[in-house]
Amino acid sequence: MEALTHFCRRTACALLPRSLSKASRRSHHCHPQTSQCTARVSSKPVTPTPLVSRLFQPSNLREGQDMGDMTCRSQRLMLQAGLIHSSNPGCFYYLPAALRSMEKLVRLIDEEMQAIGGQKVDMPALCGAELWKQSGRWELMGKEMFRLRDRHNAEYCLGPTHEEAVTELLASQSTLSYKQLPLLLYQVTRKFRDEQKPKFGLLRGREFYMKDMYSFDISEEAALHTYHSVCHAYSRLFDRLGLSWVQVQAATGNIGGTLSHEFHLPADIGEDRLLMCGNCGFSANVETMEPGQTDCPQCHTTQLTESKGIELGHTFYLGTKYSKVFNATFVNAQNKPSVTEMGCFGLGVNRILAASIEVLSSEESIRWPGLLAPYQVCILPPKKGSKAGEAIHLAEELAQSLGNSLPNLKGEVVLDDRTQLTIGKRLKDANMLGYPYVVVVGHKAMEEQPVFEVVCQHSGETMFLSKDALLHFLTGVETI
Amino acid sequence: MEALTHFCRRTACALLPRSLSKASRRSHHCHPQTSQCTARVSSKPVTPTPLVSRLFQPSNLREGQDMGDMTCRSQRLMLQAGLIHSSNPGCFYYLPAALRSMEKLVRLIDEEMQAIGGQKVDMPALCGAELWKQSGRWELMGKEMFRLRDRHNAEYCLGPTHEEAVTELLASQSTLSYKQLPLLLYQVTRKFRDEQKPKFGLLRGREFYMKDMYSFDISEEAALHTYHSVCHAYSRLFDRLGLSWVQVQAATGNIGGTLSHEFHLPADIGEDRLLMCGNCGFSANVETMEPGQTDCPQCHTTQLTESKGIELGHTFYLGTKYSKVFNATFVNAQNKPSVTEMGCFGLGVNRILAASIEVLSSEESIRWPGLLAPYQVCILPPKKGSKAGEAIHLAEELAQSLGNSLPNLKGEVVLDDRTQLTIGKRLKDANMLGYPYVVVVGHKAMEEQPVFEVVCQHSGETMFLSKDALLHFLTGVETI
Repeated sequence: MEALTHFCRRTACALLPRSLSKASRRSHHCHPQTSQCTARVSSKPVTPTPLVSRLFQPSNLREGQDMGDMTCRSQRLMLQAGLIHSSNPGCFYYLPAALRSMEKLVRLIDEEMQAIGGQKVDMPALCGAELWKQSGRWELMGKEMFRLRDRHNAEYCLGPTHEEAVTELLASQSTLSYKQLPLLLYQVTRKFRDEQKPKFGLLRGREFYMKDMYSFDISEEAALHTYHSVCHAYSRLFDRLGLSWVQVQAATGNIGGTLSHEFHLPADIGEDRLLMCGNCGFSANVETMEPGQTDCPQCHTTQLTESKGIELGHTFYLGTKYSKVFNATFVNAQNKPSVTEMGCFGLGVNRILAASIEVLSSEESIRWPGLLAPYQVCILPPKKGSKAGEAIHLAEELAQSLGNSLPNLKGEVVLDDRTQLTIGKRLKDANMLGYPYVVVVGHKAMEEQPVFEVVCQHSGETMFLSKDALLHFLTGVETI
Repeated sequence: MEALTHFCRRTACALLPRSLSKASRRSHHCHPQTSQCTARVSSKPVTPTPLVSRLFQPSNLREGQDMGDMTCRSQRLMLQAGLIHSSNPGCFYYLPAALRSMEKLVRLIDEEMQAIGGQKVDMPALCGAELWKQSGRWELMGKEMFRLRDRHNAEYCLGPTHEEAVTELLASQSTLSYKQLPLLLYQVTRKFRDEQKPKFGLLRGREFYMKDMYSFDISEEAALHTYHSVCHAYSRLFDRLGLSWVQVQAATGNIGGTLSHEFHLPADIGEDRLLMCGNCGFSANVETMEPGQTDCPQCHTTQLTESKGIELGHTFYLGTKYSKVFNATFVNAQNKPSVTEMGCFGLGVNRILAASIEVLSSEESIRWPGLLAPYQVCILPPKKGSKAGEAIHLAEELAQSLGNSLPNLKGEVVLDDRTQLTIGKRLKDANMLGYPYVVVVGHKAMEEQPVFEVVCQHSGETMFLSKDALLHFLTGVETI
């Protein structure tokens, strides 16, 4: 092995272009055997400031293209801004900026789920038919489920949700103790649903990312406590995104269980009808109400008002519906096996992203929840050859120093280096793409006391700040 | 809308348990419209120190279970340590510790790919048959490809790789300029392959995570430059993991192209046979050699030696094989359309993880590449009721203060709170699970000058350090 090791290094370097081989050799001293008891030596690569001219963000909407009635504002804006590209019906390529945003959303979800004790797992997309037949959902799911057979003719579905899989996992742990409960397992994975009519871009697709959490508790009381703590985490998450969400009582559908809520973002294109009481706070998905009921069933004093909503999340108290079927038990305080009480909790990841853009944006300009903007700051140097042209290098320096000196902005600053274009044209682009903060480096940056123009795109406010004031101001930008 | 907003808040709070509603209300002032131009107010939740008693890390190997010949050391250790759980053949649940490790690996891959200009995207798993028929690979892939039909009877495969999809994406961008090249797009997604005989746990599964990068260049020369820069990034990545890897010339298989290399980890269970020259550095997968050739084809002076390897990565220079078929062109300096030169570059994500464990571990104890350990530090309080029992709270304080005061250890410190067990028993577990650093808080921690025992598990070395020295020592632990 030692000979091999020695050997491989020489090979690697021989194959590398000369300019690179030095760096490669430098990192060769790093061995876990010797370096564990001293500080490990970092050989992190340096990632340069992203340049707008090099970002792969092509407009995927041809001018004058008829989008039909299956579309909506967020889909149009996302195609236009080079965030997504259509593939098969209901399937999309996520282009770099959209993926950055989605990864931020996943980090936010991780933070909130882990704060309430959630442990992240990852379950296979291929789910054996056997499990789904055991729960009775193989038939129930009908055409919504993608089904396939492997080379040995065994039957599978592409998991649209994972109650069966996670309950089987728990059931295989024969020594699970009551002391280990509540147990909250969640994943953020790609799910599949063979929608009859995929529409509204990322809002109703056939392939999508979902966060699904499953809880296991010792009793109904404990399970309801967990249920409320997840609802609270959802509330906090939507608040941190700055969304005006609403929580309503909901039907349990083919997931099952006895208690359910949906979290909605009110919007005209929403596919759910919500009824709400302005007096007592009662709110419900119309599915859960008696047909024709218009007065509030809780306070009986007020007429309900109706709104449409985009469903972002759904919570279910399942009881023992699945744990009984798969015999998912724990050892209770009396040292006897006892069936666990379950809950399940979904968040539509790409749906939260698209719905936020849907409600926060104007017809022409994307606005992101602050935390989810792909990049927080865009720096605009002056036009090449213009009177302020000499300030181009000041802009480059600024981009670098922001990324280096403010930890919250690491990787969050882009430089719009398309200096063949006027500042006005690039400001327009920046407005459409929705960078929260645009910093214009114009002729004022060349004065003895240099001043930068900062446009806060959410408020439309413009400020003129010295470099120190700019740094201080941007220190407050929250990122994830 | 305003009424709705007001309303939803009351609903949300009404539904929350009393203890939680205060925190919820506190975060309600955060609105993007008003908060963008002041510092955004963070309402980050606090994640407490993970406790070993609560980590879902169940042994998924029954004592005396016959594992058959389709298994290997890493699979056995990963089942035993509660890192994975078997599902369908070739499919696994990733349990929390394994997923933490895999997420670190993905961050490392992101860092290295982005340092050479890689832009991350995400392509659908459902790939339309049409594209694969165009490239001629629909037939070629044979039974290795999972195929299915949707409710409209349209034919799809579950993408095992994405040359077709990414080339189609590029081909749809009619205005791509030579100034935007090289363009490097990559994704880290779940891939599917209907292996005849899945084996060796995560090393050869039917569902797995792969990093696949695709490059687009203006010329063969530029494409080869990109090719070498990706090879260099791979070298650096494997070096940072502390692995003794080897790069060999390889066959192009059904991906195609004219130049290819594999990155291997030498191991007895490796499924590839590698031939190497100790003199000139030549190295090759035996597939690329004349049958029976034993002398080095490069220097002709030496006999080649053979080794087995686990393939971790594979690079291909594709030329115009796919770009011609899908007409993926760019506008060249003469303002004419020109076909792009492509490369493609794969890394087996879960395979790197499992192979590292395979070669670094002993039969009884898992050893991780330092950067990929799920948690860097495990703190062991004394046994309850023992003479040092009063030091339990010192251990709890230490766990908290390490996580708080050392940014590199945020979230990386666990407390083995199973104080009903002896330190010896818990040390044995910690050794099996392979935390790089174990800190024992015993009776020496109660002395006037408290001293902590630190076991560096990779070297087996033990040190006794004051709290300040311990903090200083752990500052050097590199994390990602």
